Amino acid sequence: VVALSLRELARHTGAELHGDGDTLVTGVAPLGKAGAGSVTFFTNPRMRHLLAATGASAVILAPDDRAACPVAALVSPNPYATYARVAALLHPSAPGRCGIDAAASVSGSATVHSSAWIGPHCTVEAGAVIGARVQIGPGCYIGEKVVLGEDCRLVANVTLCSATRIGARALIHPGAVIGADGFGFANDEGVWIKIPQLGGVSIGDDVEIGANTTIDRGALEDTVIEHGVKLDNQIQIGHNCRIGAHTAIAGCAGIAGSANIGRACTIGGGAGIAGHIDIADKVHIAGMSAVASSIAEPGAYAGAPPLQTKSAWQRSLFRIKQLDELARRLKRLEAAVLRRAGDGPDRK
Amino acid sequence: VVALSLRELARHTGAELHGDGDTLVTGVAPLGKAGAGSVTFFTNPRMRHLLAATGASAVILAPDDRAACPVAALVSPNPYATYARVAALLHPSAPGRCGIDAAASVSGSATVHSSAWIGPHCTVEAGAVIGARVQIGPGCYIGEKVVLGEDCRLVANVTLCSATRIGARALIHPGAVIGADGFGFANDEGVWIKIPQLGGVSIGDDVEIGANTTIDRGALEDTVIEHGVKLDNQIQIGHNCRIGAHTAIAGCAGIAGSANIGRACTIGGGAGIAGHIDIADKVHIAGMSAVASSIAEPGAYAGAPPLQTKSAWQRSLFRIKQLDELARRLKRLEAAVLRRAGDGPDRK
Amino acid sequence: VVALSLRELARHTGAELHGDGDTLVTGVAPLGKAGAGSVTFFTNPRMRHLLAATGASAVILAPDDRAACPVAALVSPNPYATYARVAALLHPSAPGRCGIDAAASVSGSATVHSSAWIGPHCTVEAGAVIGARVQIGPGCYIGEKVVLGEDCRLVANVTLCSATRIGARALIHPGAVIGADGFGFANDEGVWIKIPQLGGVSIGDDVEIGANTTIDRGALEDTVIEHGVKLDNQIQIGHNCRIGAHTAIAGCAGIAGSANIGRACTIGGGAGIAGHIDIADKVHIAGMSAVASSIAEPGAYAGAPPLQTKSAWQRSLFRIKQLDELARRLKRLEAAVLRRAGDGPDRK
Repeated sequence: VVALSLRELARHTGAELHGDGDTLVTGVAPLGKAGAGSVTFFTNPRMRHLLAATGASAVILAPDDRAACPVAALVSPNPYATYARVAALLHPSAPGRCGIDAAASVSGSATVHSSAWIGPHCTVEAGAVIGARVQIGPGCYIGEKVVLGEDCRLVANVTLCSATRIGARALIHPGAVIGADGFGFANDEGVWIKIPQLGGVSIGDDVEIGANTTIDRGALEDTVIEHGVKLDNQIQIGHNCRIGAHTAIAGCAGIAGSANIGRACTIGGGAGIAGHIDIADKVHIAGMSAVASSIAEPGAYAGAPPLQTKSAWQRSLFRIKQLDELARRLKRLEAAVLRRAGDGPDRK
Repeated sequence: VVALSLRELARHTGAELHGDGDTLVTGVAPLGKAGAGSVTFFTNPRMRHLLAATGASAVILAPDDRAACPVAALVSPNPYATYARVAALLHPSAPGRCGIDAAASVSGSATVHSSAWIGPHCTVEAGAVIGARVQIGPGCYIGEKVVLGEDCRLVANVTLCSATRIGARALIHPGAVIGADGFGFANDEGVWIKIPQLGGVSIGDDVEIGANTTIDRGALEDTVIEHGVKLDNQIQIGHNCRIGAHTAIAGCAGIAGSANIGRACTIGGGAGIAGHIDIADKVHIAGMSAVASSIAEPGAYAGAPPLQTKSAWQRSLFRIKQLDELARRLKRLEAAVLRRAGDGPDRK
Repeated sequence: VVALSLRELARHTGAELHGDGDTLVTGVAPLGKAGAGSVTFFTNPRMRHLLAATGASAVILAPDDRAACPVAALVSPNPYATYARVAALLHPSAPGRCGIDAAASVSGSATVHSSAWIGPHCTVEAGAVIGARVQIGPGCYIGEKVVLGEDCRLVANVTLCSATRIGARALIHPGAVIGADGFGFANDEGVWIKIPQLGGVSIGDDVEIGANTTIDRGALEDTVIEHGVKLDNQIQIGHNCRIGAHTAIAGCAGIAGSANIGRACTIGGGAGIAGHIDIADKVHIAGMSAVASSIAEPGAYAGAPPLQTKSAWQRSLFRIKQLDELARRLKRLEAAVLRRAGDGPDRK
């Protein structure tokens, strides 16, 4: 267990300390449950009653909320980011392991840094390059000529196909598959002919990739994931996509081939992005939306269908299919009313 | 091959036997294909012609259908449940294996029950506790301090991250990943800062988890899957969710973080549930629906978009985007017609 | 590196050569980037400016485009299929490996062809039959009585559950799980009783299965994937489905149990197909569509919801829920206008 004083936490995070800097804390906890020795955070105004009653040793919060805090405070203009840093200080990752497990299979022509760890039941193919302090958990497959930058961590059962190149500090969760063939076929009189997928996958620094997420290799050039991208679980990214730096994508989203997503975007869970389109920087797509064409302007977009009781929705479905006819009937009726009125003061 | 008499099947399942109790059967088969020695079931009225012609030795069916059955009958108020039990009696699972495979890697500080089996190429980390008769198939990863209750079965290539706790009799299919980090980040001037995911996953008894399904660990407290929950393949369950007892979720559904799903719910395939919402007990969500806000009342809900020919749908899409304007035009027209009529007998 | 003359490429692919047949080429490249020694292809009229400026040694294109080609041409009525074949000739797959890796676990009762390769950390269970030249990459699980036809390739970390039968030349990407239990339960007074899943999965020749795609075993009979089917990543195919020959399904699509999909269909990414329905041959479903009922006629169908700015979509959602009422109001208004007009020249 790590114990740090509030003074140390303030110093490491740049937060402004109000209260006794010598107070020691050993962990983080939720606002409503934190007790002595814990730090918590407050950002949601609906939780104000919990703030007033908190038993935490200290609360991380915004300047405007300080007056409402009954205990010591770490004040920050961005309390959630400060909380992230405090939690990482109090709950550091386990130290890395080192060496090649006796139950791993590593090609003689792979280059494994002496400070890296290759876990049991891993396979590392010829020509792979594994950087300093990289942690490759049990059951991973590292294909030919894969390059893994320093401090990457593959938790377990991760698959990196040949020629995948990943920068520093990636965190890749179990079941992720990077560099499988893109889905490319030519139809020749009813039979699909495979297009060889000759590109790779190129991933920047500080990328996190969720469990069972898949990123396909490019057809001729690389699929590109830029610095700082965060991908949740069960995401599919097709061949030749580019995902711009610091974009975050939630679970179950699917990005079809050759889509070009901008920087600093957020894409909600279950959203689908069509292939061969361009999404500008700072576009925010709501969950369960279908994006069928390019988006040139930053901003928030949505399209998830409504939810109704089953019987109401059946009527809505019927009416949606009738909608073009309804609109034509409305137009005819407007014309009829106008004609009979002689002039039409209600319509410009 | 197991051979059981109809009398034995009736006794074990509580069904009422009509016909020769000494008849031996060795398996189950579809209504239209079952021959002598097979048991089948009848529940779908549209299959009545197949019932009349069945070659099965016996049919499991409801009391009202017995008169239409040309062969021996096992009569039950819930024929499908009785069929499930009969099929399990006639087709028992293979007996479990026992011991630690020579090609497994098991930490010296893990506790493995002497009746459990750890298959080849598995890794079991420090402090894990593996209960009686647990079957861990080849290629599984069991993280630190994982607890697996008695009679759990992990088919193969299952990943349980550290501190996942699972009750008795779980059946977990290949590629499932339980306990990967939740998707939590704070944005600090355009860069995502990781929120350490410090909770675990807590799973009750009698839970089944499908292939490539993912359940994330909680941020501060556990993600909770209650007793008897059944999860199909490729489901994503975000951090801090609670899935109530005996809820069943079909394939490809996605449940965003901190959603609280009630007991005895059913969620259809491909449905998406937003984060931080509450779904009451006994709510039934149709497949491909998007649930964006809390549901307080039990009942059936739907929202999947309609399907039309591509050209008709393009007109519908155009009209949906125009819908707010159409509604305003309708309102204006109503006002105009009312005004000209002097009074408005058609409108209250 | 393979070097082939344009004459050889023309001869192997049936294309018509225009230009110097002795020119040697060593690879394929995109139209805008190809240099001397590379072949490229032209099919998209919007790229005509790149064709005029190409630095490639030769371009594969259609007869009508030959006049616009500034360099040697391989002319074909189906340039993309010809490109696929040329790319495969110039970039052949690495030669297969052979033998059973010392770190694989293979049952004594499995039959492994002497020309097949079983990679490290694989498990092959009793009674499995592995055909000639089959490549089973690292970390795969091959269950009891699985049959793999000749020239199949499992890249790595693939799971084939017991009794899965696969024809010749399958290519299966990492994380795919074939033959897990279908999702079948009977509800007995609030508790789900498992229906034993006793069928298998039967897969034809020349099938490709994407990363993390799942295909469940049948309840009583086999789930069937016919010849030449191509499945992208993260697809879910439920128990008892049939996917007709040469159908292609894009990523993240979900096919519920007992759906019967025709031959030569295409199903877009993220689409959902309901269970127990029939889809005719040559049906094309757009991405993100929900197919809730059978489709008897070939053709193109769509249903993905529209995308709007978030504020416009909120108004649309409100209006969609109001749609049945709007339609009734429109009908009443039509009746009122007709009645007042005495006769109704605007309405048939």
